[in-house]
Amino acid sequence: MRHLTGALVNAHTGLNKGSVITIKADLGLIGLAVMGENLVLNMESRGFTVAVHNRTPDKIDRLLQGRAAGKNVIGAYTLEELASQLKKPRKVMLMVKAGEPVDLFIQRLMEVLEPGDIIIDGGNSLYSDTIRRTELLEKSGLLYVGAGVSGGEEGALTGPSIMPGGSRKAWPHIQPIFQAIAAQVDGEPCCEWIGPDGSGHYVKMVHNGIEYADMQLIGEAYFLMKHLLGFSAKQMQEVFVDWNQGELDSYLIEITAHILGKIDRDTHEPLLELVGDAAGQKGTGKWTSQEALDLGVAAPTIAEGVFARIISGAHHQREQAAQAFPFVAPKAELNAVEFVEAVRQALFASKICAYAQGFDLLDQASNEYNWSLNLGEIAKLWRGGCIIRAQFLQHITDAYNQEPDLANLLLAPYFREILQSSLGAWRQVVAIAVEQGLPVPGFASALAYFDSIRHPYLWTNLVQAQRDYFGAHTYARRDRLGAFHTEWNSLDDVVSSDEV
Amino acid sequence: MRHLTGALVNAHTGLNKGSVITIKADLGLIGLAVMGENLVLNMESRGFTVAVHNRTPDKIDRLLQGRAAGKNVIGAYTLEELASQLKKPRKVMLMVKAGEPVDLFIQRLMEVLEPGDIIIDGGNSLYSDTIRRTELLEKSGLLYVGAGVSGGEEGALTGPSIMPGGSRKAWPHIQPIFQAIAAQVDGEPCCEWIGPDGSGHYVKMVHNGIEYADMQLIGEAYFLMKHLLGFSAKQMQEVFVDWNQGELDSYLIEITAHILGKIDRDTHEPLLELVGDAAGQKGTGKWTSQEALDLGVAAPTIAEGVFARIISGAHHQREQAAQAFPFVAPKAELNAVEFVEAVRQALFASKICAYAQGFDLLDQASNEYNWSLNLGEIAKLWRGGCIIRAQFLQHITDAYNQEPDLANLLLAPYFREILQSSLGAWRQVVAIAVEQGLPVPGFASALAYFDSIRHPYLWTNLVQAQRDYFGAHTYARRDRLGAFHTEWNSLDDVVSSDEV
Repeated sequence: MRHLTGALVNAHTGLNKGSVITIKADLGLIGLAVMGENLVLNMESRGFTVAVHNRTPDKIDRLLQGRAAGKNVIGAYTLEELASQLKKPRKVMLMVKAGEPVDLFIQRLMEVLEPGDIIIDGGNSLYSDTIRRTELLEKSGLLYVGAGVSGGEEGALTGPSIMPGGSRKAWPHIQPIFQAIAAQVDGEPCCEWIGPDGSGHYVKMVHNGIEYADMQLIGEAYFLMKHLLGFSAKQMQEVFVDWNQGELDSYLIEITAHILGKIDRDTHEPLLELVGDAAGQKGTGKWTSQEALDLGVAAPTIAEGVFARIISGAHHQREQAAQAFPFVAPKAELNAVEFVEAVRQALFASKICAYAQGFDLLDQASNEYNWSLNLGEIAKLWRGGCIIRAQFLQHITDAYNQEPDLANLLLAPYFREILQSSLGAWRQVVAIAVEQGLPVPGFASALAYFDSIRHPYLWTNLVQAQRDYFGAHTYARRDRLGAFHTEWNSLDDVVSSDEV
Repeated sequence: MRHLTGALVNAHTGLNKGSVITIKADLGLIGLAVMGENLVLNMESRGFTVAVHNRTPDKIDRLLQGRAAGKNVIGAYTLEELASQLKKPRKVMLMVKAGEPVDLFIQRLMEVLEPGDIIIDGGNSLYSDTIRRTELLEKSGLLYVGAGVSGGEEGALTGPSIMPGGSRKAWPHIQPIFQAIAAQVDGEPCCEWIGPDGSGHYVKMVHNGIEYADMQLIGEAYFLMKHLLGFSAKQMQEVFVDWNQGELDSYLIEITAHILGKIDRDTHEPLLELVGDAAGQKGTGKWTSQEALDLGVAAPTIAEGVFARIISGAHHQREQAAQAFPFVAPKAELNAVEFVEAVRQALFASKICAYAQGFDLLDQASNEYNWSLNLGEIAKLWRGGCIIRAQFLQHITDAYNQEPDLANLLLAPYFREILQSSLGAWRQVVAIAVEQGLPVPGFASALAYFDSIRHPYLWTNLVQAQRDYFGAHTYARRDRLGAFHTEWNSLDDVVSSDEV
């Protein structure tokens, strides 16, 4: 154990200055980028003592001498030192880059920790890595928790949404800390135990996938008002402020209003209109879409959110395409008040479809990986702290409380009614956008999702007949049970449908 | 070496009956499901002697005594026997289920083959498996070829499209066989060397992804004529026969006409309308979509083709949704001749976008994996033999011949003109479908792709501003170089845009 004196320790020990102290921390945190730092300060503000480590030691010093000066934060310059500073069972939280860095720290931590100690990965790790790591650590007697943490920098500092999953035995030890630092909504912490192994990171992944769709849909609403109504940023700010008073009330709508209100100090123009339109991504929306494809869940609106960001960054193709197919400013004559309301309804209906896709994926994953996820509880965790936080989520909780086996969110009474009443406006908005050359991949894919899922007999009879034609994949019949094959390339018009 | 007598050999040897023969085969094929059997018979019909092996020996006997009776086909009941029957360097083609069975046969073949011998995997293996296997086999002195084979059962028998990639040194040895059995278009075989390791299987995967989109789009065209024009199967058959005379001329349009013409022997109804609408899938469309997401290529129309099949099979959700949101028969009054032509244009324009997405993916993959793919040559290989065969592909070849660095297929003069002239009809068809409650996810996603890629300034400025707001991800400015960050949640309306 490192003997700490003077400037190296900020914890109030009550001991005389200069004497050897052996204070123990409640949790050790590794990785002092902004998210990690803010979590440390959040924990400390709730009365916990935190030991901190970073690969490069200068960040430790900077934190101790800066934002954590005078606070119950202890520096650990080696992992051995970190281990010696922690109460048992030790709780070490990794806030490092997903991928190899996590594996490297786990490997090194395994050398300094003891059976019963807990490693928590608070980054955006791929759930399958978390499954693998949980198995590895449990074999060696340690406990492992993959915890999704949402809320960005600000959430980390003031109260994130936390989705922990993994070794169940770890929960009682970390629960007091995590529930204390999480966002609180109606007196309940936005943190609950999710389930086994990779489930916490999975739920966070799907949260992010939904976030991609949500941002995409808000973007399209803004885009339509700008181009079809010629609204200024100021006018649109008012619309979003207004929307934030109603059903759409949410963090993303709120920050959109803030953004639209900002004027660039240099040019005195609305800053948003100066922002380049190449949108970046860090992988979780992609993972969600790929997972949906793997598990056989339709998530087209989430995927369109990812594809839109991809297109936005394809400068080379876009420049040439803009020249080859010049965009002509739309010429629709619309009643502004009515159209704004129609866009609001289209946005809300599309949003419901995106959430339905995300929750369908969680439902399938719960079956696939035997996680017994509580979908209503998960929606509740997202009411505060995280990026997609919204009042709206309470309705999802209610829907699953009323009917735990709900086949699809669209079918819950609250959402069904909204969809039914929005349908006319939704169709109108998509049709106008399509006619005027304004892409709305989010709105359109959500509407196609809705129209597909409710149609009694899709075009896919033809797809299956084609498959049987060239690949003898067989088909079902609507009028009898069994699997059938037809020699479709027969020269006769009248053919047999043979049970196989 | 097994000494073959009498019934066990069908090869014409010229030796007296009963005497010991040692005829050598040109190629050994393992896996006698329909595709494998048909490839054997195809090779034999071109003058090659083929040795055949199957995990269960009864299939060998059945082939030798059945379809291969009296032909130059030799049975091999063990892999040792197979090896002994082959000319050197030995060429062994696997036509077994993708995944573990391929690895198992490779392992066993490594024990009986010699350096310089060639293993060919003709199944639908994932390209990354093929990369791994090529490396493994080349290390042990063998040559490995991953060959995509398209054309279904019929193509395998009469002339498939073959896309071989892997150990370049193997090509001179397999070229005479593969180019002889492949489909021929304008005197050229639909088989050329694709490139290193997994490139052949990759190209086949993208072929299949495009096939998903193609089938989806044809399905939507059928669906619209059925619901909006009330066309009978017979009427639609005529439309597809007519379309097959023009730009849309292709195998899939042709078989759609066949399918629409078939009457069920039992019920005397058009058989297609009795076919269940749950469309199956075997994974290559999913892989293509996932790869596109991984490489950062927008392929929404291919993904929608996969999602549509997923939805078609979600019986439980669909039944309830059909009740909750009853579909009302459309009431559009349309001029049938004009609308059919509009649908044709929408179909063709959407198809161009789907191919543009597929070729963009090939282009990116070529860079990512250092394959130096010849995109024009690949389009040429698909003109015959395979499921997406079409005259249309010649235009893709021409486009890349004219401009090898073409940024996107949409930009080639031929396609640009079609898109420009179809745009009005395309928008009209999607808008009507949207208004009438008929899902057209393929047409709509293709149109959104087109409208996105050509729009000079998308809504994604807002997405990026939001990302900077909650995650400090920074943004670019349109009016100056650099990366910028703003404290968007400032209480002031006038804010600074700070270079970081």
